[in-house]
Amino acid sequence: MSTLPKPDASLDAADLLRRPLHNDIIELSGGYAFPQFLPDVTREAGIAATVYRHETMQYAEVLGLDDLRDLIVSFVKADGVSCDRDNVMIVNGAKHGLDLICRAFLQPGDRVIVTAPSYMTALSILRTHQVEFLSVRQDDDGIVTGDLENQLLNDQAEGRPLPKLLFDVPEFHNPTGITTSLARRRQLVELANRFGFLIIEDDPYRRIRFEGDPVPPIKSLDDRGVVIALGTASKIVAPGLRIGWVIAEPDIIERMAGFKADGGTNPFSQRIFAELLRTNQIDELVAKLVAELRLHRDAMISSLAKALPEAEVRTPPGGYFLWVTFPAGTDADLLAGLAPTYGVRIYPGRLSYAGQPVLPAIRLCYSYEDPERIAEGISRLGRAYKAMHSQGLDDATKASLLARLGKVPIH
Amino acid sequence: MSTLPKPDASLDAADLLRRPLHNDIIELSGGYAFPQFLPDVTREAGIAATVYRHETMQYAEVLGLDDLRDLIVSFVKADGVSCDRDNVMIVNGAKHGLDLICRAFLQPGDRVIVTAPSYMTALSILRTHQVEFLSVRQDDDGIVTGDLENQLLNDQAEGRPLPKLLFDVPEFHNPTGITTSLARRRQLVELANRFGFLIIEDDPYRRIRFEGDPVPPIKSLDDRGVVIALGTASKIVAPGLRIGWVIAEPDIIERMAGFKADGGTNPFSQRIFAELLRTNQIDELVAKLVAELRLHRDAMISSLAKALPEAEVRTPPGGYFLWVTFPAGTDADLLAGLAPTYGVRIYPGRLSYAGQPVLPAIRLCYSYEDPERIAEGISRLGRAYKAMHSQGLDDATKASLLARLGKVPIH
Repeated sequence: MSTLPKPDASLDAADLLRRPLHNDIIELSGGYAFPQFLPDVTREAGIAATVYRHETMQYAEVLGLDDLRDLIVSFVKADGVSCDRDNVMIVNGAKHGLDLICRAFLQPGDRVIVTAPSYMTALSILRTHQVEFLSVRQDDDGIVTGDLENQLLNDQAEGRPLPKLLFDVPEFHNPTGITTSLARRRQLVELANRFGFLIIEDDPYRRIRFEGDPVPPIKSLDDRGVVIALGTASKIVAPGLRIGWVIAEPDIIERMAGFKADGGTNPFSQRIFAELLRTNQIDELVAKLVAELRLHRDAMISSLAKALPEAEVRTPPGGYFLWVTFPAGTDADLLAGLAPTYGVRIYPGRLSYAGQPVLPAIRLCYSYEDPERIAEGISRLGRAYKAMHSQGLDDATKASLLARLGKVPIH
Repeated sequence: MSTLPKPDASLDAADLLRRPLHNDIIELSGGYAFPQFLPDVTREAGIAATVYRHETMQYAEVLGLDDLRDLIVSFVKADGVSCDRDNVMIVNGAKHGLDLICRAFLQPGDRVIVTAPSYMTALSILRTHQVEFLSVRQDDDGIVTGDLENQLLNDQAEGRPLPKLLFDVPEFHNPTGITTSLARRRQLVELANRFGFLIIEDDPYRRIRFEGDPVPPIKSLDDRGVVIALGTASKIVAPGLRIGWVIAEPDIIERMAGFKADGGTNPFSQRIFAELLRTNQIDELVAKLVAELRLHRDAMISSLAKALPEAEVRTPPGGYFLWVTFPAGTDADLLAGLAPTYGVRIYPGRLSYAGQPVLPAIRLCYSYEDPERIAEGISRLGRAYKAMHSQGLDDATKASLLARLGKVPIH
């Protein structure tokens, strides 16, 4: 990874289109795991294949392995969430949990509250259920509950059907990195009780904290069962395990389980993850990852200051992402379309909005590449940004560049 | 497994209710794998955890690992199905494939053609999509295509919306064991083309053939892309792998993939299964399993002749199940409710019907228990049958016995 090819000097529009994609693209788009820290599960897989063969090669219970469910109870207890095995269902990643919630609770046309911006894949999943979005802005304390309350009061006054669900990532929000304050979390629970919606608390990044203290999960403030919490092994151990969990009231779990058509979540992976939890390996894996990702974040922040001084960015105290905004009038879609030609991949901010983007923005992820390549990636992005501004690109050229983004997996 | 406890002599109704479930229940209900033949995947799991760590611990592509998709192309080619990688999507078991088809192609109220009886879990999944069923009977040649054609012509004449999908298990049907004839398969494809529905060919049991020759898959007769074939590792290697596949036209695959909210099917399991395929271990595993399950089937058939001479049963040349019918007036639900008290678990035929059962029947599975326990299980079932007929049970007692069946996983 130390020899990074240098891109050509800036090119004219026609030349950009003729030019193939860079042959070594630096990946700053999807929230992949850091390849150098992928865990070695040889021991756990061996145990799963031998000692637990009767379990790992057979159909699994729809709610998950009993002992894994108990281990999850302990895992979330450390974060302040009190629950029992009956409150826990193992799923194939948190996305699967969200999809099951939609299956169980939504009809086409139902309204769902999301932040603007929000987690792009959650928006995709919600769209497959044909929802209507109610977008609410964030400030430094997270979702602006006052705005939400006013909107709900208006809806009530006008006789509009109220939203059924709220989706949020309150700790190190994807994409903004904002952590919702305790006061706002309490207000969300109060609003959910008052207006009768369920809160989906997606909490994959909680343990990826570089500085400061965590805020209690919304689920820990919920005494009437209005919060469905989603957790995952993807961001703390490995996405490849495809293990997530749902924590909710037993009647909600049961309702969701009725739509779990998977013959049980992979018992081999469940056993590997249970072994990692049982032998207390998670804390060590997470501590190592946090120390590493902090360096990634810092490299990205300092590179942005040099290569893209026009950009505004908030330094998040944890998580995987930076949300970078540009002066009004900047074409962030075009920047994202142009980036691969310069050897870096990013996501345009548009993907994180349920409706029209509020600001020109991009989402950057610092989890996958090492600090050296992150610095080089941001430098390439700076060159793409300059090229974009130095040239008058016609619409056809823009469209062709955007088409090159193609289909990309989103995490 | 050699010391089988003897149940008590027959009991009166009140006594049956007081009595706890038998403490050693013989499992003849779900289509579980034979525990003694669960594969040892230690070597493959070790390779997955080490050589392929970059792949197995990371997010996977939504359509599956490229080389596994190619291996599936070869696997189904042996059955007569010609396809390319673009036609293959890996899923978390065939049930997941069916669920994705429903997501992609059905709206609530859409009609789906099924056999009467049909695969109970497919019916459950279809019900979660709020479909209307069009049930068509089977004879010895499979689904009666003449009846289906008449029904569709009637619907057309009356201006009713035509069905969108047909679901069938044409090779060793679940539950009846019937294999659809080649002529009927051709007629199905012709009807699908003429009336504009898609055929879902669920084919998990094809390789579990004890006698005779296989009939070409419906997919191999499909020159216009109206068949979606579902395959699975569950019935030939291990259900715990949670690996299935879908074979269809690329536009159908793409549409289904849009609803695959799982962050990619478990790449660790995909790699294990790919290794088993690549090293040609499947044929050996299957040959061993076929030899064993033939003994299971024969033990069950001969035990039924002794213990339940009133029952009618067809001897299927393959698959996992027997479909056992009783004289009109027999209460098959009650028999299934009573069975666990006598130490055996079976499924009432009712679960296999989209509508009202046509005949009193039960589904028996011979995959999980060994021949000795199968013989004992059928003997216990015979005692339950006799007890049921020797006693006049009131409705409340019946209801209590049925409630004891509880929630059971269904495969």
